[in-house]
Amino acid sequence: MFEGMDEAQLTGLRRVYEEACGRGLTLNMSRGVPGVDQLALSEGLLAAVKDSAACVTDGLDARSYGQLEGLPEARKLMGDILDVTPDEVILGGVSSLNLMYDMMARAMSHGVTQGSEPWGRQGTVKFICPAPGYDRHFALCRYFGLEMLPVPMRADGPDMDAVAALVRDPAVKGMWCVPKYSNPTGTVYSDETVRRVAGLTPAAPDFRVFWDNAYAVHDLYDEVKLLSVARAARAAGHPELVIQFASTAKITFPGGGISAVSAGPETLAAIRASLFFQTICYDKLNQLRHVRFLKDLDGVKAHMRRHAALLRPKFEAVDEILTRELSGLASWTAPRGGYFISLDVVPGTAKRTVELMKRAGVLMTGAGATWPDGRDPEDKNIRIAPTFPPVEELKTAMGLLCVCAKLAAAEV
Amino acid sequence: MFEGMDEAQLTGLRRVYEEACGRGLTLNMSRGVPGVDQLALSEGLLAAVKDSAACVTDGLDARSYGQLEGLPEARKLMGDILDVTPDEVILGGVSSLNLMYDMMARAMSHGVTQGSEPWGRQGTVKFICPAPGYDRHFALCRYFGLEMLPVPMRADGPDMDAVAALVRDPAVKGMWCVPKYSNPTGTVYSDETVRRVAGLTPAAPDFRVFWDNAYAVHDLYDEVKLLSVARAARAAGHPELVIQFASTAKITFPGGGISAVSAGPETLAAIRASLFFQTICYDKLNQLRHVRFLKDLDGVKAHMRRHAALLRPKFEAVDEILTRELSGLASWTAPRGGYFISLDVVPGTAKRTVELMKRAGVLMTGAGATWPDGRDPEDKNIRIAPTFPPVEELKTAMGLLCVCAKLAAAEV
Repeated sequence: MFEGMDEAQLTGLRRVYEEACGRGLTLNMSRGVPGVDQLALSEGLLAAVKDSAACVTDGLDARSYGQLEGLPEARKLMGDILDVTPDEVILGGVSSLNLMYDMMARAMSHGVTQGSEPWGRQGTVKFICPAPGYDRHFALCRYFGLEMLPVPMRADGPDMDAVAALVRDPAVKGMWCVPKYSNPTGTVYSDETVRRVAGLTPAAPDFRVFWDNAYAVHDLYDEVKLLSVARAARAAGHPELVIQFASTAKITFPGGGISAVSAGPETLAAIRASLFFQTICYDKLNQLRHVRFLKDLDGVKAHMRRHAALLRPKFEAVDEILTRELSGLASWTAPRGGYFISLDVVPGTAKRTVELMKRAGVLMTGAGATWPDGRDPEDKNIRIAPTFPPVEELKTAMGLLCVCAKLAAAEV
Repeated sequence: MFEGMDEAQLTGLRRVYEEACGRGLTLNMSRGVPGVDQLALSEGLLAAVKDSAACVTDGLDARSYGQLEGLPEARKLMGDILDVTPDEVILGGVSSLNLMYDMMARAMSHGVTQGSEPWGRQGTVKFICPAPGYDRHFALCRYFGLEMLPVPMRADGPDMDAVAALVRDPAVKGMWCVPKYSNPTGTVYSDETVRRVAGLTPAAPDFRVFWDNAYAVHDLYDEVKLLSVARAARAAGHPELVIQFASTAKITFPGGGISAVSAGPETLAAIRASLFFQTICYDKLNQLRHVRFLKDLDGVKAHMRRHAALLRPKFEAVDEILTRELSGLASWTAPRGGYFISLDVVPGTAKRTVELMKRAGVLMTGAGATWPDGRDPEDKNIRIAPTFPPVEELKTAMGLLCVCAKLAAAEV
């Protein structure tokens, strides 16, 4: 039992918890899913290209074959989001995760650039994984048999001293980064951190930073400007070091967006060469819909302000409840954007807390999921995904989470 | 100079050719691309899901995450096209080639089923390639370093005696099949051929037939019914032998269709397991559009009859011109569906014929492209893709092709 709680309080908490269990809640808060009100913001996308004439743009017919790298207008739109030029962008399908998977699969089987040795033929390959981080990134490493090297996340990004030390090992081939509103901590990399990433001098010539800019325009308050990693890397003389990814999954529709990859000229050439074997083209009609609906970067920003207006009350409700209930017992982030709040409960109680939530009908992201191989060394991190439930349900779930966190803490 | 042509005729042909060269033609007949009139048939697809309410079906929100294997209704539609049940189907993005690429990449890196040895760790891996065949299939084998074993195409499908002999080698891991209106010959596999494929007993337990049913519903005349390879394989006790692929690229839009893969339970489980790492989901809104627009298999068939009405005059014009101009000199197929006519010119003259066409401004599929590694042993096969140009342009191009074929023949 933790300090400051007496037996009567604990009995009270247990009663509250059992009552909650009896209410038959079924809430899924396990993933960062936009709310139904957010999806409605993009209704105009659905019929943004509604007749045959609208399918032809700049002499290109989006309905037909061709334009393997994507429609020029859509490459410009996604390039603007990633702060790169259209010719530095190749578009993908719905999911940027798919582009990351393809990049890793290609690195394993064919190497990161044409003529470079495939990772799969170089023995054990290692990847730097700032943690806590995104479970799907770690899952990709696991799938391809990469050894994961966790490094701590700081307030301004990954511990770059630790990273700089690790890249001296030629078996270290890459690093995951979610540079803005990092999943799950909400961290924004400082200019200094971006410059240090861009200035890395890895022992492996085929080392690549996988820069998953998933929340590039997902500000909740004022616009936060990330330093351009592409420019910083070029300035440092490392044009091939960083590969950027983004998608419109959380701008328009998770189930019907478009994605993009950007990289240095040689890496991009390798992607392009592989793409010829890989597909005929991606969905150019959906690319065109996105251009017609979002128009340009200003259009994207205006659209994201509408998302922010719906999301701010949810993030603030979580913070308020955590402040009221868990101050002194736990710590959490108060991100200025993105999709997650990262909660650190009493060490050794994250798994138990999530388990108690599940028993009461609320599915949280699995405890440990934010760490490589699902192993949170202190068993303390819980990812809160507040976007999907309506505010009232979210408050119910958060109240319950605080009860569970306290009950779990009382057990240790 | 070939039999039956005198010097005066040859001079005349040369003059006709030089006149054509002077006309500044620019025609691309290199790929099987639907005509603009065909694309217009699917205009209704564009706004088939036009507001937020229409995005929710059977309690599933197509705009959001989830349904990794595809929307149930869309799996049923694609399953009906492939003559399998919905639960035997997993949907992909725009391109079935992408599903084939993924299948081969997965077989190389992780094996065809969970726990089976990756092809990439088994030394030289070989693939049976009926030829002439589809250049992109051969390109995929080349990309992954597979040795290609050409077997002859007969009127009723590949030479199955040759295939049966080859599969005794445990290094032979698979076989390409385009079972209906095969690219480029237009061949439809006979029931006997389908049964022999389904009855194959390869030495390699991880041998798979890649059954690219690209033209499953692409009949030009009466409906031609292909024997169900899935049922035949099950009946033969080989439920995992065949992996089927299809897409709506040439039903709706090449640049905005949906695709599907179907396989035995264990192979499907491996695809499903890999899919979790690979993507969040495919474009469910586009799946829903297809269901709303095409409705069901009867809807697909009615839609394909409209395509056929536009395509028949083109295929017949080609046949008529070839009959008039090249009888006795060349042979060609008269397919009852699909997208290609296969022309065999005088041995040793296909490359030259295509080169002459190019000089005159008409881009044909490269000679040799229909053979593994681009090597047509007799240099005689030319793939004609008659679908894209309007009939009058097609006739001009075909007239020119006959002139070029004769000029090339006269040179040997």
